[in-house]
Amino acid sequence: MERVDGRKPGQIRTVNMTTDYNKYAEGSVLIEVGDTRVICTATVEERVPPFLKGLGKGWVTAEYAMIPRATGTRTIREAARGKLGGRTMEIQRLIGRSLRSVVDLEALGERTVTLDCDVIQADGGTRTASITGAYVAMMLALNKLMEQGMLKEMPVKDFIAATSVGMVNGVPVLDLCYAEDSAAEVDMNVIMTGTGRFVEIQGTGEEATFSRDEMNSLLDLATAGIMELISLQKEVLGDKISNMIG
Amino acid sequence: MERVDGRKPGQIRTVNMTTDYNKYAEGSVLIEVGDTRVICTATVEERVPPFLKGLGKGWVTAEYAMIPRATGTRTIREAARGKLGGRTMEIQRLIGRSLRSVVDLEALGERTVTLDCDVIQADGGTRTASITGAYVAMMLALNKLMEQGMLKEMPVKDFIAATSVGMVNGVPVLDLCYAEDSAAEVDMNVIMTGTGRFVEIQGTGEEATFSRDEMNSLLDLATAGIMELISLQKEVLGDKISNMIG
Amino acid sequence: MERVDGRKPGQIRTVNMTTDYNKYAEGSVLIEVGDTRVICTATVEERVPPFLKGLGKGWVTAEYAMIPRATGTRTIREAARGKLGGRTMEIQRLIGRSLRSVVDLEALGERTVTLDCDVIQADGGTRTASITGAYVAMMLALNKLMEQGMLKEMPVKDFIAATSVGMVNGVPVLDLCYAEDSAAEVDMNVIMTGTGRFVEIQGTGEEATFSRDEMNSLLDLATAGIMELISLQKEVLGDKISNMIG
Amino acid sequence: MERVDGRKPGQIRTVNMTTDYNKYAEGSVLIEVGDTRVICTATVEERVPPFLKGLGKGWVTAEYAMIPRATGTRTIREAARGKLGGRTMEIQRLIGRSLRSVVDLEALGERTVTLDCDVIQADGGTRTASITGAYVAMMLALNKLMEQGMLKEMPVKDFIAATSVGMVNGVPVLDLCYAEDSAAEVDMNVIMTGTGRFVEIQGTGEEATFSRDEMNSLLDLATAGIMELISLQKEVLGDKISNMIG
Amino acid sequence: MERVDGRKPGQIRTVNMTTDYNKYAEGSVLIEVGDTRVICTATVEERVPPFLKGLGKGWVTAEYAMIPRATGTRTIREAARGKLGGRTMEIQRLIGRSLRSVVDLEALGERTVTLDCDVIQADGGTRTASITGAYVAMMLALNKLMEQGMLKEMPVKDFIAATSVGMVNGVPVLDLCYAEDSAAEVDMNVIMTGTGRFVEIQGTGEEATFSRDEMNSLLDLATAGIMELISLQKEVLGDKISNMIG
Amino acid sequence: MERVDGRKPGQIRTVNMTTDYNKYAEGSVLIEVGDTRVICTATVEERVPPFLKGLGKGWVTAEYAMIPRATGTRTIREAARGKLGGRTMEIQRLIGRSLRSVVDLEALGERTVTLDCDVIQADGGTRTASITGAYVAMMLALNKLMEQGMLKEMPVKDFIAATSVGMVNGVPVLDLCYAEDSAAEVDMNVIMTGTGRFVEIQGTGEEATFSRDEMNSLLDLATAGIMELISLQKEVLGDKISNMIG
Repeated sequence: MERVDGRKPGQIRTVNMTTDYNKYAEGSVLIEVGDTRVICTATVEERVPPFLKGLGKGWVTAEYAMIPRATGTRTIREAARGKLGGRTMEIQRLIGRSLRSVVDLEALGERTVTLDCDVIQADGGTRTASITGAYVAMMLALNKLMEQGMLKEMPVKDFIAATSVGMVNGVPVLDLCYAEDSAAEVDMNVIMTGTGRFVEIQGTGEEATFSRDEMNSLLDLATAGIMELISLQKEVLGDKISNMIG
Repeated sequence: MERVDGRKPGQIRTVNMTTDYNKYAEGSVLIEVGDTRVICTATVEERVPPFLKGLGKGWVTAEYAMIPRATGTRTIREAARGKLGGRTMEIQRLIGRSLRSVVDLEALGERTVTLDCDVIQADGGTRTASITGAYVAMMLALNKLMEQGMLKEMPVKDFIAATSVGMVNGVPVLDLCYAEDSAAEVDMNVIMTGTGRFVEIQGTGEEATFSRDEMNSLLDLATAGIMELISLQKEVLGDKISNMIG
Repeated sequence: MERVDGRKPGQIRTVNMTTDYNKYAEGSVLIEVGDTRVICTATVEERVPPFLKGLGKGWVTAEYAMIPRATGTRTIREAARGKLGGRTMEIQRLIGRSLRSVVDLEALGERTVTLDCDVIQADGGTRTASITGAYVAMMLALNKLMEQGMLKEMPVKDFIAATSVGMVNGVPVLDLCYAEDSAAEVDMNVIMTGTGRFVEIQGTGEEATFSRDEMNSLLDLATAGIMELISLQKEVLGDKISNMIG
Repeated sequence: MERVDGRKPGQIRTVNMTTDYNKYAEGSVLIEVGDTRVICTATVEERVPPFLKGLGKGWVTAEYAMIPRATGTRTIREAARGKLGGRTMEIQRLIGRSLRSVVDLEALGERTVTLDCDVIQADGGTRTASITGAYVAMMLALNKLMEQGMLKEMPVKDFIAATSVGMVNGVPVLDLCYAEDSAAEVDMNVIMTGTGRFVEIQGTGEEATFSRDEMNSLLDLATAGIMELISLQKEVLGDKISNMIG
Repeated sequence: MERVDGRKPGQIRTVNMTTDYNKYAEGSVLIEVGDTRVICTATVEERVPPFLKGLGKGWVTAEYAMIPRATGTRTIREAARGKLGGRTMEIQRLIGRSLRSVVDLEALGERTVTLDCDVIQADGGTRTASITGAYVAMMLALNKLMEQGMLKEMPVKDFIAATSVGMVNGVPVLDLCYAEDSAAEVDMNVIMTGTGRFVEIQGTGEEATFSRDEMNSLLDLATAGIMELISLQKEVLGDKISNMIG
Repeated sequence: MERVDGRKPGQIRTVNMTTDYNKYAEGSVLIEVGDTRVICTATVEERVPPFLKGLGKGWVTAEYAMIPRATGTRTIREAARGKLGGRTMEIQRLIGRSLRSVVDLEALGERTVTLDCDVIQADGGTRTASITGAYVAMMLALNKLMEQGMLKEMPVKDFIAATSVGMVNGVPVLDLCYAEDSAAEVDMNVIMTGTGRFVEIQGTGEEATFSRDEMNSLLDLATAGIMELISLQKEVLGDKISNMIG
């Protein structure tokens, strides 16, 4: 089988991460996964949401958006429509939940880290690229807090990265681009830690179903892809930061 | 291990389905899963959403809501807040997507089936109870279309039901009630067909992660539970309707 | 004259009230007036709205909604439309105002009782059924406060119930079902206390007018119907609670 | 008993109606009832709302608003709050419904008359002043359609005017100013035709109730007040227009 | 060249200002510039917006609206549409900003003056008439604070008024009415102080451009017109108030 | 005088324009003016807004947004707040209006060009950078229409670019960065064509005023700066496209 962009079934796209892409954010990265490009910024604020007031814990949350021409045809802005769509809400809840799974919120202290993931070009896998990039932006911001003496130890227990897998023409493939994603019978987003544990699995067959064997093949591919992404995160973050984790 | 309500790890709660609960809807059921109660109604309309106009296909969609005191403390109405929350959107998208996976939209013809799932009491598992009940309501509505001669054959390929599984105190358990759901380290919603294929898997660990072995145990439990639910659906729908499926 | 469902002009429909229908609410009832069914729950919260802060008074308020297939054709959810309609606002203001007329807000203390009236099937008279049912739910909730020692005396001065009357084909009739309501020339909602005093009268002729004599006939019918409803409330609440009122 | 502004219980305030107050509207009037001032404009558009399309009938509808300093303390604009309040919706529905009761919508033809009632100073009775003024604005606009040959006959069957009555310190009084309205135990808005038939009665006791005898006294006062208002409408509209009605 | 209403290029329309037009507002004026009529009210509240809390400074802000038939065809209410349009926001920001330029916010103290400009008839120049009128309403309100001893000195440094100028058929003209405004190639709003300094200049050519010479001619006309308007403000405010300024 | 970044009063910041920055848009550019960075995309759609239907004319419109960390502290997303702010509306109206002033809408034909200006880093002058960049994106999109034979001639009459000028510490300076903008007594945005004619001038003194002499100095600076920007546009667009204009 030939994939639409010539890749092998188990091959991820070229990934680039430009750190400190934004001069204001406490941490930031431009992540490029093939033609998918997401600006991830991490903002640290010395306050927590109302439901955490006074509990001595911090919070990690995320927001996600696309610029109108991130997509092939222009998408109407959610600000213009006056409300967030269901897809946006699902994605930003997913990003926040995933990052929280590796953060020790007590050790973070009463502060909030907000990860903004703004997709400036979308070619499939924007939510998984957002998670992979947001993790890096968050680490850069937390490292800055360490350097400023506001944190004594890094409150992060593990690495985290994400990719998509799917059944395309009956074959399990890794890291779907938009053309593949549109044609996939089954689409699964997998989020995993550096120690190989699952954080979240979302497998869905819009007009199809999948067997347990197929699921196992997809998870094998995803695991390999995510390990590759975590190696890249380590490279980008450098040894000093990478060694603080865990 | 003793579960909070005395059940065994692999035991589902008592399930009741009262069909034709509503006198206006084309199909309706009150589903009770333990203390969780959801009114599911199916509405058939001879129109399709704009993106399907003229394509000769139908549509299946869902909406989900809770009355304010479905929950232990009063929840503010989304109508009063002026917008749907992220959780509501995620759930109603999930219900619609799941049902569409077993419907032949071409065979349905240019009409829309809307499943309204209104939770009148919530004790865990409201989204999975909604899917299990909505399937029954949809079948009753489609059977009415068959009887009226508006459909030549039943446009449904398989049964579908859903349940939750999770790791509670390190033990995999089936069909979590609210108390268990709040305490679970990992929570997974599984939606499956009568032929044992997955429609959707959503596994998540808010402040935890899970291994592949744990995932396999959870899927075993879920499969058994869903098969039990599908037996109940067959009983409630009767042989005549059940035999039309597939 | 024969009414559409065989009743006599001055006859109300069969009324059932199932108390403690909801396991979470401080008070709850499922009221059925013919085919009209409303779930009424009373929530007690130890806070008051901003305009009453520090005045030593409590508040009683209400919200009203219908599930989409409460009606013959599916009604779009107000949460989906992003705002409450004028009819909903009118009704919920009416329910709250009516109940407040018999409550001693000083004696209630700085707490709020919220009555949620969720119509699960509508066949005319949903607002009056809501008032009749909400009164019962409120009494059950206040009785619970008495039992818990949070109230020394019952802060309610009188019973309250409501019904509709109208001119249908030139004849005054009591407790209109939907078919009659649609055909009525004049429609009047009457809310009355156990001692026979009016709380609210709303008479309206959308495309008609009515004479003072017709109004008097309608009020006679309404008075008789409401007295019957109040007898049923007393039965459902039991002597112990009923005797605390006044 | 002395009323706050020296009037007798059955005396209405000074009423002024300045016709053609606005140079663009098809009909317009500035109505002043004591210190209450409302600009009423009637707009005629050659279209009907969707639910009337193709039925050969017209529509009459109303909108109501107050400028922020119409009131003693500044009221936040509903446009700034992003939604209409419950009170506004109730009032504009009431105005529209009342006017429709005397209009022959078939004779009006497929057009819409919109009555905008903008309160520029409020001193009690703004909804009843709006109805009394909107009727005059509507008649002026319909007369213009007659003069332009767009209507063959006046599609209005009767006059209509409105006033408030209430129990203040136990005494029934007519046409309450704001100070009286705030102190009233019972407040009733009455809308009546030139032939003495009721269009709408809305009697309410926020924290009180009223007997049938009290209601009868209030209706006697209201009837007298409305007849006086209708005389003033006839004067302002002139014989030519007044004689077309009925 | 003949202007549409017979005026000379440099001639402003007849201006009337009726002070104390509203009985509740701390300051109010009905300003009429030709057929343009705006009710301006000034409300003084003893609070400041959150961003000024505790800074010992006051605030001046404005809101702007039009009644639906202020215009030739009916404009939909922004409250009904659920949001303010871009034009409204631009105008109310402009009015507030302009007035603040001559107010000493420290001297005003921790209070807010809100200027509501409600256009009841629009014939061009509503934003400039609003500014000219709002200034007068503000001065009347501040004078009341002086009389009540709440202000020791008038916290206003200068007069301020505004007018529009534009190129119509290639000729620079002053104070455009609606017919001219619609036909103008260039439209410029100029806001100026009593000492002849600019507060704001907004020149725009929707489908045209303008040279620097043209701009200079327009500014000459505007300066003359504004000086005339400020003379009228002085007359209306009287010597006592006028002499406090500066 | 030393400027905060060492520039001379009449010196603009370094400007970079990366064309075809986005792979989907018909025209796109990343414009960098100092540290201000804006992604401008031009979308061509074969439809016009309702008010232009059937008139044989096209439309040019713009939208503007900032990502949350475009700014020093995180700005809440307008999509999350549910509505566009006044500043955003003002800016996007300004961009659209400015571009339309040099486009021959008849020659454009019944199509819409939408310019999306998404600020990914803001350091002053985002609206003027948006206009300068949007012009380039629009030209690239129109050139594509020319190449595809959908346009016979370039429907653009002139170049257009924009910059800001202001009085900082009493000195007129060109192209203000954020630190200067915050400290400026007077801020003026100037939009000008390649032939030196004004399209729009917006001069404002929030808490200050300015003389006519000061305004003239500011306009001199702006004119020089804009001519420099237009030279850069020509370079980026190349001779082929540049020569089609006029």
